[in-house]
Amino acid sequence: MKLFSVIGITQSGKTTTIEKIITELKKRRFTVGSVKDIHFEKFAIDTEGTNTHRHYKAGSDLVTARGLFETDILYKRRLSIEEILRCYEHDFVVLEGVVDYSCPKIITAHNEQELKERVDNHTIAISGRISEKISSYKGVPALSALTEVDKLVDLILEKTYNKLPDFPSKCCNACGFSCEELKQKIIKKEKSVSDCLINEGKIELEIDGQKIDMVPFVKNILYNNVLAVAKELDGYKKGKSIKIKIGEE
Amino acid sequence: MKLFSVIGITQSGKTTTIEKIITELKKRRFTVGSVKDIHFEKFAIDTEGTNTHRHYKAGSDLVTARGLFETDILYKRRLSIEEILRCYEHDFVVLEGVVDYSCPKIITAHNEQELKERVDNHTIAISGRISEKISSYKGVPALSALTEVDKLVDLILEKTYNKLPDFPSKCCNACGFSCEELKQKIIKKEKSVSDCLINEGKIELEIDGQKIDMVPFVKNILYNNVLAVAKELDGYKKGKSIKIKIGEE
Repeated sequence: MKLFSVIGITQSGKTTTIEKIITELKKRRFTVGSVKDIHFEKFAIDTEGTNTHRHYKAGSDLVTARGLFETDILYKRRLSIEEILRCYEHDFVVLEGVVDYSCPKIITAHNEQELKERVDNHTIAISGRISEKISSYKGVPALSALTEVDKLVDLILEKTYNKLPDFPSKCCNACGFSCEELKQKIIKKEKSVSDCLINEGKIELEIDGQKIDMVPFVKNILYNNVLAVAKELDGYKKGKSIKIKIGEE
Repeated sequence: MKLFSVIGITQSGKTTTIEKIITELKKRRFTVGSVKDIHFEKFAIDTEGTNTHRHYKAGSDLVTARGLFETDILYKRRLSIEEILRCYEHDFVVLEGVVDYSCPKIITAHNEQELKERVDNHTIAISGRISEKISSYKGVPALSALTEVDKLVDLILEKTYNKLPDFPSKCCNACGFSCEELKQKIIKKEKSVSDCLINEGKIELEIDGQKIDMVPFVKNILYNNVLAVAKELDGYKKGKSIKIKIGEE
């Protein structure tokens, strides 16, 4: 799963840029999901008077509305992007207006002042209204989604990377950097996703509460044996954690 | 997680009954979630013109709208109840109008004709409008949520059981019955949840934090695969617990 965000103020061309990118990604046969961040304080998708709203008012902690052609899972709180992504298993996920998750960014803007405030080390492209006036900004290419969507999507394919962890640097800097720093280095091509050590050594084993050391080929045998079964089961998702317990707690 | 459904035609008192039950369950300190089935063909929570709708029209396969105080995960297809329940971890989940999932039922109705069409072996109570006129129907108690919600919720506590699998009888009848038959016997108190062999024995599997149900022969395959490797390692002790973790914590 590769992620990128499109960030910019209202009317800078954010949603239009995303529409064009999604259409192009789908044309290239990728599966695509998206998350739209809404900063409007009164945003409410389920309103007074519906039956689902009555469930909430009565105290239901989570309500789902299931229709014949859609299903809407309605949380009455702001979820973190990590929590939301548990529902996704697409090739690409586009984040609109999301600023609390670190991943490659496309900035849409009207003018250079807006770019100045937003372009950072995660920025891979400039787009939206300003991309019709300039061709780059501080070395970052400006590409209009209206006229150059193929180039913009080529760049997305080149610069995005498979979802990495998002740990605070205190929790993990096994690779020598914080997750944030590693992501910046990946965009600059100084490092690659495989430098993240979290995904290495893929399997851990405990017997009677004691960690058992395994040489790599034994690790692989156990890993392959478990995956051989788990992959065939409903609920299996590639890249997700697997836990097995045998016997007493 | 204990489930029950409330079923009945329009205006029979379904949503009112659910509101009263949810309020009473919350008063008793339980966590409660709910699912509302909508049979209206044109139901659409996200409508023409919104940015999230534009994502869909461009081809996004899954869209989430995240506001400051709510998060709405909007699937453009009808999910199965099993899929929806992967998002839930509540003490109770109330299903409104859901007829494709087998669990204890409360039937709301205007008259005996409606009861005749709906009351079955899963029915634990009658409620809604008719419960103000009769006190029972074919041995099933009739309790009004408006005046006797405490008794109704006592009955729910007595008759609901922890979520059981919902396999077709061809996949599993290890307990001697189909899942459907076992659930009926649990309501009649002839059997209990512990008669379901899916939850029994030696091996448990979680993927991405969710418990995965396995029919007994799949359990055995996974168990044998893990043991085949673990037995060969220094540190293995017969009969001791084994834990395996793959991927992120």
